[in-house]
Amino acid sequence: MHTIALLGAGRIGAVHAAHIARHPGLRLAVVADIDPAAAQALADRHGALALSPDQALDHPGLAGAVIASPTALHAPQTLEAAARGLAVLCEKPLALDLAVAQAALARLDALGARVLMGFNRRHDPDFAALQAALVQGAIGTIETLHIISHDPAPPPPAYVATSGGIFHDMVIHDFDMARWLLGEEPVEVMAAAACLIDPAIGAAGDADTAKTILRTASGRMAMISSSRRSGYGYDQRIEAFGARGALRVGNVPHSRVEHWGPAGAAGAPFMDFFLDRYAAAFAAQIAHFVQVIDGAAPLVSAADGLRALLLAQGAQESARSGAFVRV
Amino acid sequence: MHTIALLGAGRIGAVHAAHIARHPGLRLAVVADIDPAAAQALADRHGALALSPDQALDHPGLAGAVIASPTALHAPQTLEAAARGLAVLCEKPLALDLAVAQAALARLDALGARVLMGFNRRHDPDFAALQAALVQGAIGTIETLHIISHDPAPPPPAYVATSGGIFHDMVIHDFDMARWLLGEEPVEVMAAAACLIDPAIGAAGDADTAKTILRTASGRMAMISSSRRSGYGYDQRIEAFGARGALRVGNVPHSRVEHWGPAGAAGAPFMDFFLDRYAAAFAAQIAHFVQVIDGAAPLVSAADGLRALLLAQGAQESARSGAFVRV
Amino acid sequence: MHTIALLGAGRIGAVHAAHIARHPGLRLAVVADIDPAAAQALADRHGALALSPDQALDHPGLAGAVIASPTALHAPQTLEAAARGLAVLCEKPLALDLAVAQAALARLDALGARVLMGFNRRHDPDFAALQAALVQGAIGTIETLHIISHDPAPPPPAYVATSGGIFHDMVIHDFDMARWLLGEEPVEVMAAAACLIDPAIGAAGDADTAKTILRTASGRMAMISSSRRSGYGYDQRIEAFGARGALRVGNVPHSRVEHWGPAGAAGAPFMDFFLDRYAAAFAAQIAHFVQVIDGAAPLVSAADGLRALLLAQGAQESARSGAFVRV
Amino acid sequence: MHTIALLGAGRIGAVHAAHIARHPGLRLAVVADIDPAAAQALADRHGALALSPDQALDHPGLAGAVIASPTALHAPQTLEAAARGLAVLCEKPLALDLAVAQAALARLDALGARVLMGFNRRHDPDFAALQAALVQGAIGTIETLHIISHDPAPPPPAYVATSGGIFHDMVIHDFDMARWLLGEEPVEVMAAAACLIDPAIGAAGDADTAKTILRTASGRMAMISSSRRSGYGYDQRIEAFGARGALRVGNVPHSRVEHWGPAGAAGAPFMDFFLDRYAAAFAAQIAHFVQVIDGAAPLVSAADGLRALLLAQGAQESARSGAFVRV
Repeated sequence: MHTIALLGAGRIGAVHAAHIARHPGLRLAVVADIDPAAAQALADRHGALALSPDQALDHPGLAGAVIASPTALHAPQTLEAAARGLAVLCEKPLALDLAVAQAALARLDALGARVLMGFNRRHDPDFAALQAALVQGAIGTIETLHIISHDPAPPPPAYVATSGGIFHDMVIHDFDMARWLLGEEPVEVMAAAACLIDPAIGAAGDADTAKTILRTASGRMAMISSSRRSGYGYDQRIEAFGARGALRVGNVPHSRVEHWGPAGAAGAPFMDFFLDRYAAAFAAQIAHFVQVIDGAAPLVSAADGLRALLLAQGAQESARSGAFVRV
Repeated sequence: MHTIALLGAGRIGAVHAAHIARHPGLRLAVVADIDPAAAQALADRHGALALSPDQALDHPGLAGAVIASPTALHAPQTLEAAARGLAVLCEKPLALDLAVAQAALARLDALGARVLMGFNRRHDPDFAALQAALVQGAIGTIETLHIISHDPAPPPPAYVATSGGIFHDMVIHDFDMARWLLGEEPVEVMAAAACLIDPAIGAAGDADTAKTILRTASGRMAMISSSRRSGYGYDQRIEAFGARGALRVGNVPHSRVEHWGPAGAAGAPFMDFFLDRYAAAFAAQIAHFVQVIDGAAPLVSAADGLRALLLAQGAQESARSGAFVRV
Repeated sequence: MHTIALLGAGRIGAVHAAHIARHPGLRLAVVADIDPAAAQALADRHGALALSPDQALDHPGLAGAVIASPTALHAPQTLEAAARGLAVLCEKPLALDLAVAQAALARLDALGARVLMGFNRRHDPDFAALQAALVQGAIGTIETLHIISHDPAPPPPAYVATSGGIFHDMVIHDFDMARWLLGEEPVEVMAAAACLIDPAIGAAGDADTAKTILRTASGRMAMISSSRRSGYGYDQRIEAFGARGALRVGNVPHSRVEHWGPAGAAGAPFMDFFLDRYAAAFAAQIAHFVQVIDGAAPLVSAADGLRALLLAQGAQESARSGAFVRV
Repeated sequence: MHTIALLGAGRIGAVHAAHIARHPGLRLAVVADIDPAAAQALADRHGALALSPDQALDHPGLAGAVIASPTALHAPQTLEAAARGLAVLCEKPLALDLAVAQAALARLDALGARVLMGFNRRHDPDFAALQAALVQGAIGTIETLHIISHDPAPPPPAYVATSGGIFHDMVIHDFDMARWLLGEEPVEVMAAAACLIDPAIGAAGDADTAKTILRTASGRMAMISSSRRSGYGYDQRIEAFGARGALRVGNVPHSRVEHWGPAGAAGAPFMDFFLDRYAAAFAAQIAHFVQVIDGAAPLVSAADGLRALLLAQGAQESARSGAFVRV
C-alpha cells in the first residue's frame, strides 16, 4: 500500500483522486491546493488530509506525488517532490516555456527522478492495444500514421488565451502519440492552421482547426487532424499503415446499441465527455504509476514531454511560415 | 445468341425483359400476355414481337422461354415450353396446389425438361458468396442457420388473399435458401405465426409475422424470421454457424455514405425496393439461364421448387397445430 | 457503508468479493464456505473474517448477504438471510426443483424479503441501454425479439450432468432477458434441441444446441439460439423488432483495434472469458444491490427467477414432445 | 441512339468499349488505334469498324468520340474531335505539359467544345452520393476533407518513369475530388513525399508515398494520403468534416460475407482490381457522356482537368521545397 499526496484539487485533480481511492494498492493521504477550500472538499470526499502545497510533500510516509496544479507549478512541484525521492505523476506539460522545461528536465535527470508525464492517451486500452500490435509486427514496418483528434466542442475563448494555443494545449497529445507509434523520432514538422469554428478563438490569436505533418529521418510520416469541435463527440481515431497492412482504432460510442430505422442503421452517439471517454485510460495511468513507484520505467518520461513540447513549438512556427520546421 | 420468348408482361416480366435485353448472349424475340396491350407495350420497349400466349411458344427459332405469368399458368406454360424442347425459366411457385405441382414435376421429369425455377435469391452475389464459402469449408460442418427476411412494408391485403399466405408467398424463398445452405434436407418444420402489423391481413386469414424452425435428420436446424414490415427497408440477413466459426451476410444500404452527427454514426438507409435490392440477383439469374440453355444443370430445379412448397405447406399446418410437422 | 456476508467462496463468489471490495459503499466482513480453507483464502484476500456458513449470517452489523453457494443451498441460505432481515443477492436459480423454488418463494413473500436474483445479464450496460431504449419507445411496440447466446466452448460433460441441462443452466438467462425485454409475459414455449458439438454431452443426456420460441398472449414472439460452443468467444447478441424499427446489441471484442490485411478487414477477437465479458455487469449488479439494501425494488426478484425456471422446464418438455407447452 | 468512335484500344479503351456496347443509347461504330491489330480485335468484339486514328473521326454520323489513346495524343485528338463538333470523353490528363494543356484549353474554349474529362472517380456511386449529401447541406459548411487513396500494389518502375510521377499520375484524381468536394478552389498546396515501398521507384526519380495538404482562400483544408501499395486492395476513402457533422465513404469489399472465427470478425477482402472497384463508375461515366452529347454540361470539364494539373505541379514543387506553393 503506497501513500500518495495530490497537489491540485481542480477538475483533473478530482479525477486522479477518485482513481487513487479506487486502486487497492494506493492510499490518498494528502490533498493540497492553493485554494484551501477546494483542497478540503476533495480531501473530505476521500478521507484524506487537506494541507497547503508547501506542507503536502513533507507529509510522512509518502511514496508518490500527483501534480495536477496549474501549469506554472508543474515544474517546481515536480522538482520538489523528486528532491524528496518521491515518484511523480505530473500532468502535461512540464512547462509551457521551453527553457523552463529544459532546465527542469536537466535537474530531474541529475536527481535520477522517476517522473510519469500525464499523457493519458497512451494508457487508453484501445490505443495501447494498437501500439502493442505494432510492436509485435502485426503490419510489418510502419510507414505512415493518421491521427484524427477532434474534440466535441470548443473551450471558452478565455481558456484558449491562456492555454498556449491549439498546438501546445491539444495537439501536444497527438505529438506524443505519434512519437510513440512511429517508432522513430520525428525531425520535421509542418502545420496549417485556421480559424473556421469560432471567430472569438481567432480573435484571441489562436486557431481552432489544424492539419499537421510530421516526418522522421527515414521518411515515415504522420498526419494529424485537429479540430476544436466535431459536433458529435470525441472523434479520436488512429490508423497506422505498414508494409503488411493497416491497424485502426475507431471511436467509442456511449453503448453498443444500434437503432435501425427509416433513416438508416445508426450506432449510439460517440462519447462526448472526457471523463467518460478516458475513464479507462485514467485508471490505467494510475495503475501504471503504482508500477513506477515500484521501480518500473515510466511509459512517458519527462524527456518525452519535452520532445512533444518541441514539436508543438515547431508546429506553431510552421503554421506561421508555411514551411517544414526542423525540431 | 439465343432467342427467348417471355410469357407475362407484368412487373416481374418487365424486369426479366430488361435483363434479357441487356445480356449480350440473348435476344428477346417475343412477349406474350393475356392482356395484349401490356404485351405490346413491353415488346415495343425492347424491339420484340407481341404475340398471344398461344402463339408465343411456336415462334420459330426459340431456345428458351421465361414464364412470368400469373401463378395458375406456371405449370401449364412450363409444360408446353418443355414439350417444345425449350429451356424454361419459371417464376416460383410451379403451382400453389401440391397435387398440381407434383403432377407437373412428373411430366417435366418424363420430358427430361431443363427448368430453372425463379428463386432469385440464390443468385444474389452476397448470398451466393456465403454459400460458396460454406461449400469450401470456411466454417467446417454447418450446424445451424438463421435467416432474417423482413420486407420493407406489407402488400395490400387484397394481394395477401390470393397469394397463398405468408408461408407460400414469402417464406418459401427462405425455405429454398435454407435447403440450399443446410446441405441436408430438412425433414421437420415448426412454425409460429401472428398478425401483429396489419389487422386487415389477419382479417384476410393470413399472418404477417412468423418464426419457423426447420430440422434435418442429423439435427441441423434453421430458424427463419419473417415479417411483412420492417419499417426500414429490406432486412434480409443470413448467418450460418458451423464447427469452426460463422458466416454472415448483412443488409444492403442505398450507398456507402455514413453520416456522423449528434445522434450517432448512421449508415445510409437500407434498400427498400425489390428491383434495387435484387437487381444483381435478377441479372445473374438471367446469366445462369443462358448456361442452362447451353446445357448446364439449373441451380434451382422444379424438384427444388416442389420441396420448398412442401415446407411451406408443413409450416402452415404447424402454425395451426403448434407442433413439428414431418415433410 | 453497508456490511456484507458472502456465502460461497468458489469462482463466482470470488467475483462478487472483488466487486464488493471495490465498491465504496460496501465492506466485505465475512466469507463463508463449506470448505473452510477456501473461505479463509478469499477472506484473507479482502481483509474479511472467515466463518462457517452456520455462523456467517449471525455476524453482527450485516446489511446484506450474497449467496454464491452450490445450487442446493440457494433457497435455504436465502431464507435464513431473509429471516434475519438482510437484503439478499442470490445466484440463480433459487432451486432446480420447481416445488422447492415455489415453497421458498412463498416463504420469502411472507417475510417481505428483499431478494435480488443473480441474473447478471440484465446489468450488462449494453443490454440495459437496449432495454431503456425500448421502454422509452425508440421502436414503438416491440413485436419480436431475437437472442443469440452462444458460449465460447462447452463445459466439461461432468458439469453438464449436474447442471440441470442446457435449458436450466444456460438458456434460463435468455428466458429472463426475453421476459424483461418483451414487456409481456411469455405463456407458451417451444424448443428444438440437438447434440451437434460434443457426443459426450449427448451421452450425459443433454443437448448442446437449441432453438427456442416463446410466445406471449398477444402474439409477440422471442427466438433464442443457444449453443455451447461458438468457437470464437461469446456470441451474445440481441435484436428487438418493433413497429417503428429495430434495436440491436452486438458482441464485445477484446479491443477496438482492427487489422486490415489481404484477408480482409478484421476486428479484434470477441471476448471469451465470462469475467472479462461480464465484468461491467457484475460491477453494476453489486451497485444495484446497494440500492436494494437502501430500499429499492430489485431489478430481478425471486418471482422473476421462478418464472424463468418455469420457462426452462417448459422448454425441456417441449424439446421432448415437439410441440408448444403452456407455462 | 448516338454513334461513337473510340480512339485507343488499350486496357482503358477496352473498358470504355464494353460500357458503350452495354448502353442502350449508344452504338460503338469505330475503333482506332496506332496498332491496327489492337483496333481490329476490339472492333471485332463489338461489331465495330476498325479504322486508323486519322480516318476514325471522319466516319459519318458520329455524335461523340472517346479518347483513350496515349497521353501525348489526348490534346490533339480532343481538338480534332471538337473541331468536327463531336462531344468528347477524354481520358485524363489533357496533357502532362502545362503549356500544352493551357493552349489546348484555350482552343477548346474558342470552339465551344463539349469535353468530359475522364476523372472517373466523380462518377463512383458512393462518392457521388457523398457529394450530393454535401451539396444538400447534410453537414452544413464543409471545413476540412480527408482523402485516403492507397492503391493495392505499385505499378512497374518502368511505368512510373513515364507516368509523370505520383502527383501527376495518381494524386491528380484526388486533387480533382478535393476541388469538387471542398466547394471552394484550393489556392495553396503543400506536399511531403517519400520512397518507402519500392527503392526502384525512388531510383526512377519518383516517390511512392505522399501526404498533401490543400488550402482554400477561406482556410478550408484537404489532407490527401497517397500510397502506391496498401497491401490489402483499394483503400480509397473520403471523410468530409463540416459545421454540423461528418460524411464518410469506406472501402468496397468483394462481397458482404463476414467470417467470424477465433481471429475475430473479418469482412471480405477489399476489391483489388480497378475494373471491379470502378465498374459502376465507368458505367455511370458513359451514361453521363450520353447526357453531354445531349447537351448537358460535363461534370468534369477540360478546365477542371487543367486545374487538377496545376495542383499536381504545385504539389511536386512543394515536395521539393518543403513549403506551401500558391497555385
